[in-house]
Formats: sequence, structure tokens, C-alpha cells
Amino acid sequence: MQKEESYIIALIQMACQGTREENLQCARSRIIEASEMGARLICLPELFCSIYFCQQEDPRFFELAEPIPGYTTDYFSQLSKTVDSVLVVPVFEKSMTGIYYNSLVVINPDGAIVGKYRKMHIPNDPQFQEKYYFTPGDLGFQAIQTTVGKIGPMICWDQWFPEAARMCALNGAGVLVYPTAIGWLPGEREGVGAMYLDSWKTVQCGHAIANGIYTASVNRVGIEPNQAGDSEIEFWGHSFIADPRGHIVAEGSGSDEEIIYGKIEPQLISETRQTWPFFRDRRVDAYGRIVE
Amino acid sequence: MQKEESYIIALIQMACQGTREENLQCARSRIIEASEMGARLICLPELFCSIYFCQQEDPRFFELAEPIPGYTTDYFSQLSKTVDSVLVVPVFEKSMTGIYYNSLVVINPDGAIVGKYRKMHIPNDPQFQEKYYFTPGDLGFQAIQTTVGKIGPMICWDQWFPEAARMCALNGAGVLVYPTAIGWLPGEREGVGAMYLDSWKTVQCGHAIANGIYTASVNRVGIEPNQAGDSEIEFWGHSFIADPRGHIVAEGSGSDEEIIYGKIEPQLISETRQTWPFFRDRRVDAYGRIVE
Repeated sequence: MQKEESYIIALIQMACQGTREENLQCARSRIIEASEMGARLICLPELFCSIYFCQQEDPRFFELAEPIPGYTTDYFSQLSKTVDSVLVVPVFEKSMTGIYYNSLVVINPDGAIVGKYRKMHIPNDPQFQEKYYFTPGDLGFQAIQTTVGKIGPMICWDQWFPEAARMCALNGAGVLVYPTAIGWLPGEREGVGAMYLDSWKTVQCGHAIANGIYTASVNRVGIEPNQAGDSEIEFWGHSFIADPRGHIVAEGSGSDEEIIYGKIEPQLISETRQTWPFFRDRRVDAYGRIVE
Repeated sequence: MQKEESYIIALIQMACQGTREENLQCARSRIIEASEMGARLICLPELFCSIYFCQQEDPRFFELAEPIPGYTTDYFSQLSKTVDSVLVVPVFEKSMTGIYYNSLVVINPDGAIVGKYRKMHIPNDPQFQEKYYFTPGDLGFQAIQTTVGKIGPMICWDQWFPEAARMCALNGAGVLVYPTAIGWLPGEREGVGAMYLDSWKTVQCGHAIANGIYTASVNRVGIEPNQAGDSEIEFWGHSFIADPRGHIVAEGSGSDEEIIYGKIEPQLISETRQTWPFFRDRRVDAYGRIVE
């Protein structure tokens, strides 16, 4: 039986407040650094090409959207060949005028786009007005075959939904990758901030355990004011990688731009699923209400 | 709008190695103590009437099974009136000769059995030979209406399945109650023991977060040798209660018999689900593979 090989994953935790060109160049230099450190799967944060514009509802921000393939995906298709790595690249996707998605592409080291995912669960909460901008995804929960193995790409709010993690795992993914833009509103950090952060990590570690799978979340950092100048979001960083037992093996700080590295070992997935054979005992005959 | 009231839950963490009569009397005295401390929902561990006989496959143990209603449920129906509390009472259920379930009943303070649950996910791993004894449950994942509110009863191995937690939550449960018999085999404690315990807690805290619901797991304690005398299980205790944010609010020790108390606050469930409105954004149209 052929064994899948282990490889290094890198999460590019970055601030995303400049122009698209500045953010692309920043991402590019970090990706080159990560590849030089041996990373073969390199992931960028959600909507990293710009500020997190969903703090407000303003039609001008639709101008940030671009087609797939397009300028940004071409940029990273070129880069993937240089760095010989699989890249996970979020894109504010313009499908047609009036239909926009919060998307990502997965690019193989030969520059080919081998998969596209459109965020399935769309939040709409104070300063996270995503339902205004994004049509809910129509491509489902996937396991995209890459040169390093199958990965399950999702985006941010998807992190809170066990069904989504389960489906990627059932489809064969070995790692769930979550580009993210999550943070605190003013006043939250001092009060409930630690609890929110802890819940965010715990629910994802739960997915890792329940599915015997790696999870990798890559968040942005920094404080971004809203357009009105009367509020802001402090993006809390803490990008992290959890192993199939739900143990966090690498985690970023709460405020710094940095690259978080971890090892993905398919052998540990196999061992974990043999120790804890949950998939054997699922009651698919009795889960009907999940889809009602 | 009528608000549901808060109440105290108590978990009876106990050793279960004597005769049925001894275990019933032990449970009885702890339940009286818990009710005197104000508990209105009191929960016993999985198969608490006997040793954890599933360490081996031996047909003599089928003699431990009893019908529902039967001697044990009658015993606690009487007691529930005395203590004026809802009781969660696991029973090794004999449905008919040849059909046995790992079950529990929920008893209201008036002595009525208001619900029955039969363990849906049955493990079968070294020294946990449950598939030999138990037919998989046929009553589904429920929210049983009691005088304190709706509770979602499950048993042990069910803890690892996000679908099960989700269905109880969708059915309206405010707290997931898991009678449990989990522990380490010889040699595990020193090596992977802490990791196993941590994963067990984390995956359940994940259910709490994903569903905005309380979870309560009540485990046995103590070392039980197998019949051959060549191995044993160290039941790890650590019965715990997690709130809807996944924060553990009360937890037992790893070795002592004790009662773990926590407060169930329906108001916190409402607040949590308003802060994190996951149920609003579920994609029931896209979860089909969950039931395949």
C-alpha cells in the first residue's frame, strides 16, 4: 500500500490594510520565505487583498471583486511554479455583475487552479455584514486533490459548523484549511475576548478530533477602523494548526505578522482513526434531521 | 414570553464494582445528598448497576439485563418523588431474549418515566466489546421534555459524534447529558493518557459551542480488572459540565467518588445563540453526504 508522504504547511498571518498590490507583494515575499523553509502547502488569510471591507455596507467595495481566473489568481499561478508549492489563495470573486462570492482557489505547483471553493456559511453580524456582499457558495464542501494530498478548503464562519468539517473529511481531505478574518469589536477584548478566542480554537479542535483530521486556520492581524471612523475590528491573529487528536501543534501570536509552520503526517491520521474508529460507527440511518 | 428557569444539575461520579443492590444504594444516597444541595436534575453513570462487564465477551453477563420498566426503574421512580428531582438512570435493558440495549430512562419528579434512550453509537474496541452485548439503539436522538426543560440524553461513545449533538439541539434540548464509562487501558495513562482525556473533553466542548448548548458528562471512577485477571481499565472520572460557550464550569477529579454541580441557565443559551447565530446560517441544502 502506498503511503502518502508528510509535508510542511505554512500559514501566512498578515495585516491586510494596504492596496491590492501591496498585499500581493507582502503575500508573495512571505510565500517565498515559507517555501524556503520547506513548506509545500502555503495558505493566505480570507480576503487578504484588502481591508476587511464588510465592516460596512458600501457598494463601492464591489469594485474590489475580480473574476477567477483573473489578476490575482494569475499572479499566484506564476508564483506557485517559482516556489514549487501548493497555494491556497482567497479571492473576492466576481462571477457576474450582481453575483459575488467570498472564494478561494487552490493552485498546484505547476500553476494550475485545481480547485475553487465559495464560502458556504455567510455571517451577518455587527461589522461583519457579509450577506450584503456575498452570495452563499454553490460548490459544496470538497476535498481537493493537490500534489501534497487532498485538502478541505473552507472560509472563516464555516469553522463553526461541524457538518462542513465532516463532509470534507468524508470526501477524503486530510487537512481542513480555513482562511479567516476574525476579531474583536471595541470593548470585547477586555471582557469576553479570551472566551471568544478560546471557543474559536476549541470548536475547530473538536472538528479535528471528531474526524481524525488536521485543521489549519490562518487569520489576519491588526486593528482596522471602519469607514465612518466610529468603530473598528481588532483581528486577533492566533492562526493555528491542530493535529488529528485536536492538539494544537503551532499557533501564532495575537498581534504580529508571522508565518506558522506545522507538519502534516498522513500516518497520524491513519493511526488516530484506528484508535478512535468513529467513522465505523456513524448512524447515517438516523441523522435525517441534519438535512431538514 | 415565558422564560425557562435556571436550575442545578448534579452528576454522580461513582465507582460501580459491587452488586446491583450496593450500587443502587450508593446511587440512592448520593441522589438524596444532591437533592438536598438543590439539584433538580441528577444523572448517574453508564451501566452503573455493575462492573463494566464489556471488558470481555461472556454470555453470563446477559443475566444482568432487566426490562424497562423493571426493578431498577421502579426503584428510582420511587426515589424521584422523595427527592423531587428529574433523574437520568442508565439501565442494561433486556428488550426480549436476544435483544439487549445500553439504555437510560429519564424520570420526572412524579415518578413517571418520561423518556427512554438506547445508545445509538456502539463501540467495539479492546476491552470495550459493546457490539457483543448491545443492539444499536432504535429510538434516535431526542430532546425529552422534563419538568426542568428539554434534555438530550446520550451515552458515552455518542460523545464523539457531532451529528448526534446537533440533532438533540435541533430537537430543542438545552443540555446534552452523557452517562459514561471511559478510561485508560494499562500503559495508556503514562503515555497518551492526558491527550486522550483532553480530546474527550475538547470534542464535547466543541458540541457545546457549535450548538450553543450545555453538555454534562458523568463518568465512573476506579480501576476494574477484567475477568481473566490479565488486564484492567482505569476509569478516569473527570465528569464535567460545559456551558454554551464551551467553558467547563465544573469538573470532578480523576479518582474520587464525588458529586459535580453546575447551573443550567436557559437565558445563557439564548444569549449565546444571539451572539453566535450558527443555526441561522446552516446549509441544510448542502449536507446530503452526512446521511449517505
